[in-house]
Amino acid sequence: MSARVLVVDDIMPNVKLLEAKLAGEYYDVLTATNGHEALRKAEQESPDIVLLDVMMPGMDGFEVCAKIKSNPKISHIPVVMVTALTDVEDRVKGLEAGADDFLSKPINDTALMARVRSLIRLKMATDEWRVRENTANQLGVIEKSSSAMAESTKNAQILIVEDQDFERRKIEGALAQDHDTLVSVGSGAEAMALVNSRAFDLIIVSLNLENEDGLRLCSHLKSNERTRSLPIVMVASSPDMPRVAQGLEMGAYDYILRPIDPNELLARVRTQVRRKRFQERLHAAYDISLSMALTDSLTGLYNRRYLEVHLEKLLQKNRESRKSMAVLMIDIDHFKQVNDTHGHNIGDEVLKVFAERLKNNLRSFDLVARMGGEEFVAIMPDVSEMRAQIIAERLRRSIAEEPVICGAEGGALNITTSIGGALIDHEPHTPQEVFDRADKALYEAKNLGRNCTVFEGAGKLDPAKFSPQRRDNVQAQ
Amino acid sequence: MSARVLVVDDIMPNVKLLEAKLAGEYYDVLTATNGHEALRKAEQESPDIVLLDVMMPGMDGFEVCAKIKSNPKISHIPVVMVTALTDVEDRVKGLEAGADDFLSKPINDTALMARVRSLIRLKMATDEWRVRENTANQLGVIEKSSSAMAESTKNAQILIVEDQDFERRKIEGALAQDHDTLVSVGSGAEAMALVNSRAFDLIIVSLNLENEDGLRLCSHLKSNERTRSLPIVMVASSPDMPRVAQGLEMGAYDYILRPIDPNELLARVRTQVRRKRFQERLHAAYDISLSMALTDSLTGLYNRRYLEVHLEKLLQKNRESRKSMAVLMIDIDHFKQVNDTHGHNIGDEVLKVFAERLKNNLRSFDLVARMGGEEFVAIMPDVSEMRAQIIAERLRRSIAEEPVICGAEGGALNITTSIGGALIDHEPHTPQEVFDRADKALYEAKNLGRNCTVFEGAGKLDPAKFSPQRRDNVQAQ
Repeated sequence: MSARVLVVDDIMPNVKLLEAKLAGEYYDVLTATNGHEALRKAEQESPDIVLLDVMMPGMDGFEVCAKIKSNPKISHIPVVMVTALTDVEDRVKGLEAGADDFLSKPINDTALMARVRSLIRLKMATDEWRVRENTANQLGVIEKSSSAMAESTKNAQILIVEDQDFERRKIEGALAQDHDTLVSVGSGAEAMALVNSRAFDLIIVSLNLENEDGLRLCSHLKSNERTRSLPIVMVASSPDMPRVAQGLEMGAYDYILRPIDPNELLARVRTQVRRKRFQERLHAAYDISLSMALTDSLTGLYNRRYLEVHLEKLLQKNRESRKSMAVLMIDIDHFKQVNDTHGHNIGDEVLKVFAERLKNNLRSFDLVARMGGEEFVAIMPDVSEMRAQIIAERLRRSIAEEPVICGAEGGALNITTSIGGALIDHEPHTPQEVFDRADKALYEAKNLGRNCTVFEGAGKLDPAKFSPQRRDNVQAQ
Repeated sequence: MSARVLVVDDIMPNVKLLEAKLAGEYYDVLTATNGHEALRKAEQESPDIVLLDVMMPGMDGFEVCAKIKSNPKISHIPVVMVTALTDVEDRVKGLEAGADDFLSKPINDTALMARVRSLIRLKMATDEWRVRENTANQLGVIEKSSSAMAESTKNAQILIVEDQDFERRKIEGALAQDHDTLVSVGSGAEAMALVNSRAFDLIIVSLNLENEDGLRLCSHLKSNERTRSLPIVMVASSPDMPRVAQGLEMGAYDYILRPIDPNELLARVRTQVRRKRFQERLHAAYDISLSMALTDSLTGLYNRRYLEVHLEKLLQKNRESRKSMAVLMIDIDHFKQVNDTHGHNIGDEVLKVFAERLKNNLRSFDLVARMGGEEFVAIMPDVSEMRAQIIAERLRRSIAEEPVICGAEGGALNITTSIGGALIDHEPHTPQEVFDRADKALYEAKNLGRNCTVFEGAGKLDPAKFSPQRRDNVQAQ
């Protein structure tokens, strides 16, 4: 995948060298020779990755990196620090400033290209979500300024695949301080069995296993839709660099070379855990936002929009299965008085409790929706008329018999409900017709004095006949 | 990116050869030796790509491909047909059956890997959207069985970058029958200028331009967020295969070799146009679904959920800018009677017309939401008390003075509204407090006989003072 790369270095020949290498691979290259210019171009030119020299006069690379990572507008751009120093401390410092990786000068071409490609791929996968962040933000589901840097790195679930005891203990020791849950296995087969049965935040894979090729495990993980997004950190020796590059190509996210420096490992693991958690939070935010389009915000029941789309499908299913279904139109009696006398807050509480009781008195596969105001609809597929009437009466009674306790003010309100029902056979019917029929029955229930159930064709139901004492008899009919 | 590949061929040595090549690159390989097995495995094992032999006894490759592409559960899996024949007619037949590409035996390794990687990348980009298709489907925004095959291939906007007249005319001739709009240019610079100013569905890029490298243009297109998703089809000669592979790596979607066969070009262009249109439809469905979470389905106004999140931000902005804003609580008088007398359909129409008048009488940057039922809220930022009162009275009058014409039945209903208003200064206030204050004013308006506006502190507004004749005077105050 081609992309736009911002190269930052105060020494012109270094800039030119990197620019030539990247342009040769058809990357679009931007350059900057100091920290201020780098920050300005990062904001204005939206590069896909920044290659950032550490040692610069004035603002050094660490500071530039920290500034990029704390600016919500550009914190999603991956940063690779480039340094002449091979000092591990510098690497850790960079990773803690939010750098996504490190490259040492003189730059190895394989490592450079593998790294750039892998980070750009990761960024692009997230970009599609970011453009839709605004809606999630407007729904209050996610903070506008959210970024991976704000995620916790603690208590991660980490799977370690390493068959050398000494190395395994070193890894476990390095990660102990973050209170991670560490599970160690010695083979790819054990690892695959585990990832299929529980959730991990990260997997560390040795590329030097004695009896198998660790890359094969990486491939399995990446080929399986369930495990595809699990971050992989490879552990390898210097001569393994070509295989490391192959692993990054395959979709592994990072690597560390032996001898393992505990602080570097910890910093790299934290970066990946943060990234995964942020990615999950973004996805969850969208899923919540989407589900909000289907539900009523006050009661959590389905909304009218969902009901209308779904009823059409239920009617078709009913036709095909040649069964009957029931539609109940349910309205709280004199609800306006509740609002006018006790205020909207109390009114809202009543609606919430009412919705709860609705759900509790219907079957799990029945569909309940709030149409708006104090009006609700229940659709009961595959039901006999008698069964539908029993359920409707049980519902009416559960409202009438137990007052609604209203939170703060502690008052108990007596609420009743009127219910209109219609049984829908397997002939063709439109949603509108079905609503109208139940609505007419509801209207009759209101006219007959409220707190009662009227079924189309059957008139007002006799509460005595449907009282709990008699229910078993009726059910047996 | 590693992935799961399904290899289908009736001749075992062919299967083994491809399996070895792919496993060597760390792909997970599944195999099938006939069409039925292939279809079963495609459904059960969710491969990321299918390599499909054309000549098989019983069900041939074309039939398998057509079956995959017409099954909504698996139609998203890319299919590459593999054939010993170099006959162009076969290629066209395969593309028309929905194949994503063709490979000729003996298989060239570079072409195989470049093609597999590029198609898998495309699939993965779409997969993330597909998992969320269900919600869009539940909202009625997109059909469950939607697939790229159903998209139109006509009337596409196509940009051709080719500096040889003879070749350009050949391309234009091939595409003429689909009524596409064809724009031809001879250089990358002209192409970049055009794509930045208008929308194209596809770009065809020659890799044999005289004065420049066509891959450089591909790179520019892929590096720019605005043009990144524009499909690129490369035109090249056989010796250019390594550069074609590089182009696919960069993100070009397809290629065709010279001499161009018009039917093959047409088939390839159609495949890409279809794919782009399907991708856009998926994205649009997702965006519409998201926006539905913010709006009331009946009136199209913002919903309560949006208002609550947004009011908090508006209050903060009001504090920071040290201005004042107004909150109006607006309720249709005796709305229950409308529903009870004329039915819910008429009630809904009244709500829609009411919402329209609300919008028309407020300023474009005011926020109007339906709280539920017949209750609406308007938030007017940066407004004086006098201006807010003028707007509220204008609104009340616009409702009272013009009856609502109700569609089908043709009746005209006289509707009035009561409005409660409160002016919010730049001190700290909570959304709840703000709602309560406007609500209290509304309650007073109801008690004072309805069809009037009450402002907190100012009492009931005198309609005469706010009549249109006097409005200019008042505005000047």
